[in-house]
Amino acid sequence: MTSENKRPSGEDSLIARYFKPLATDPGAFALDDDAAVLKARGEDIVVTTDAIVEGVHFLSDDPPDTIARKALRVNLSDIAAKGALPAGFVLTLALRSVDEAWLAAFAGGLGEDARSFACPLLGGDTVSTPGPLMVSITAFGRVSEGKIVHRSGAKPGDRVMVTGTIGDAALGLDILNGGAVTSALAGDQAAKEMLISRYRVPQPRNALAEVVREYASAAMDVSDGLAGDLTKLCAASRVSAAIETALVPTSKPAAALLGRGVTNLEALISGGDDYEILCTVSEDHVAVFAQDAARAGIAVTSIGKVIAEQGAPRFMDAHGNAIRLKRLSYSHF
Amino acid sequence: MTSENKRPSGEDSLIARYFKPLATDPGAFALDDDAAVLKARGEDIVVTTDAIVEGVHFLSDDPPDTIARKALRVNLSDIAAKGALPAGFVLTLALRSVDEAWLAAFAGGLGEDARSFACPLLGGDTVSTPGPLMVSITAFGRVSEGKIVHRSGAKPGDRVMVTGTIGDAALGLDILNGGAVTSALAGDQAAKEMLISRYRVPQPRNALAEVVREYASAAMDVSDGLAGDLTKLCAASRVSAAIETALVPTSKPAAALLGRGVTNLEALISGGDDYEILCTVSEDHVAVFAQDAARAGIAVTSIGKVIAEQGAPRFMDAHGNAIRLKRLSYSHF
Repeated sequence: MTSENKRPSGEDSLIARYFKPLATDPGAFALDDDAAVLKARGEDIVVTTDAIVEGVHFLSDDPPDTIARKALRVNLSDIAAKGALPAGFVLTLALRSVDEAWLAAFAGGLGEDARSFACPLLGGDTVSTPGPLMVSITAFGRVSEGKIVHRSGAKPGDRVMVTGTIGDAALGLDILNGGAVTSALAGDQAAKEMLISRYRVPQPRNALAEVVREYASAAMDVSDGLAGDLTKLCAASRVSAAIETALVPTSKPAAALLGRGVTNLEALISGGDDYEILCTVSEDHVAVFAQDAARAGIAVTSIGKVIAEQGAPRFMDAHGNAIRLKRLSYSHF
Repeated sequence: MTSENKRPSGEDSLIARYFKPLATDPGAFALDDDAAVLKARGEDIVVTTDAIVEGVHFLSDDPPDTIARKALRVNLSDIAAKGALPAGFVLTLALRSVDEAWLAAFAGGLGEDARSFACPLLGGDTVSTPGPLMVSITAFGRVSEGKIVHRSGAKPGDRVMVTGTIGDAALGLDILNGGAVTSALAGDQAAKEMLISRYRVPQPRNALAEVVREYASAAMDVSDGLAGDLTKLCAASRVSAAIETALVPTSKPAAALLGRGVTNLEALISGGDDYEILCTVSEDHVAVFAQDAARAGIAVTSIGKVIAEQGAPRFMDAHGNAIRLKRLSYSHF
């Protein structure tokens, strides 16, 4: 945190106590200056920014360490999907008041993630707000010159691949909101906790970044729902896709809830907050892509193909019939 | 704006309409991707982030174009004070609702400033909030490797220099709040407007960046009040300073208000939002620094000297007597 903006000395000392330990990069100048320096080392700097707002992207009573982790991880997820390695981040924290216990827990979670993802804090700003808590992060990545993976490179015939499982976070949010999933899983605390943790603490696929950079023709992260995000990728690439929804990877609890009719496929593929990587890979690279992904410890699944059309992707059921989706993605406005 | 986060297609089209024209840098990919690329070109990338919140850093009824300009300029001011040239910025906009007229005016002001300061929009995020409007910007600069100007380089004997005039923005805020300055300037609309505009639309000194980089031993921008910010610069440099307050540059209206006792020196040097550059320059560089500053069209004034002590700077009146300041800077918490 630079300390030049509307901040009393009391807060300066809080920042020193809680956030300085996270500023391990020499370019952060121990948060003692007005700006940081990011060394490029002959690579391109990838820049992404994502904010999360209390009551919109996280819940008021979410634990502070998970709020911090989510704020950083939604950005790390973009860095990964672009084929880049994390280089650092700056943080803007809008707080109603200074609560030391809350800040300590927040900084603790943030620091653990900054270390484990090798993404140090470079600077930031703390402002007071009369409104909801907001955490805005701008994260940086490094990628070989010209090698960023765009949304726009998908080619007809490419396979559509997705990491991990889809729809868990939407189910987790349903539980936190006391929805139908809550009672359906009344006896299964472990399943509930798994789904909630998928909502609160996404697992960005940074371990896959180099594999994506090497083999993906197009990539983006799934944050607004698989259906809507694939639609965006197709539009950017001027192609369409045919998706076999039966192939969409689901977790055990999600599959069970699907089987019991507690949720439906549309809810899973249009629900937000997955933070998986969606990418396209040419047919002759699929095998090596899957192999290298397995080596990186990331599950990848082929869910369909890119087709030489323009327009929204087609989602087909197990019988090859088109499914009409009422909504493609989560929307707040 | 990347369009991957909680954003419906309606908002995507708003972003395309209003913000795409600002994304003139090829690394912004016309805001059609999840991340931007910043080319380093062998220089260091300077990173700074500052947020402004409705009701805290600007007023609810401030014109949208001035809100946008202020959000960008407070960041440009940091870039300038570090001796760097603007390279671009990312924007996070937290909105209660989508108001096309407001957005058009906001983007209009932002676009004009982005052009005139050669600081293109690289990407961003728009989120909904039930709370106050908030604009968070992370701005980037470029500076020759290792040449960023720190807070920490001031040496005993260096002159303390400041650009422009000090205290106008605090007087402008007083007027907007209906304070004592309002009635004191009842007959002088031009003076009122000048002071208000100094609060709403700071004039960052980016034209001075190369001169600062060349000659300043330490620098920072004055955003929280000259007294408090100089205290921070001295602490970072492990020195103190002796300031002749009679030398602190004031505008005509501010000087007149001082003369009439409507305001006092303490209010001016502890008031926030000046966004001038405070720097230290060694005695043998002061002449060429002032000359080059004049050539860049920026007024600079020597207000005192760095002294070989540690502790808060001393502020002296015209008779050489120390002034005790009750507060050093503006504080929101």
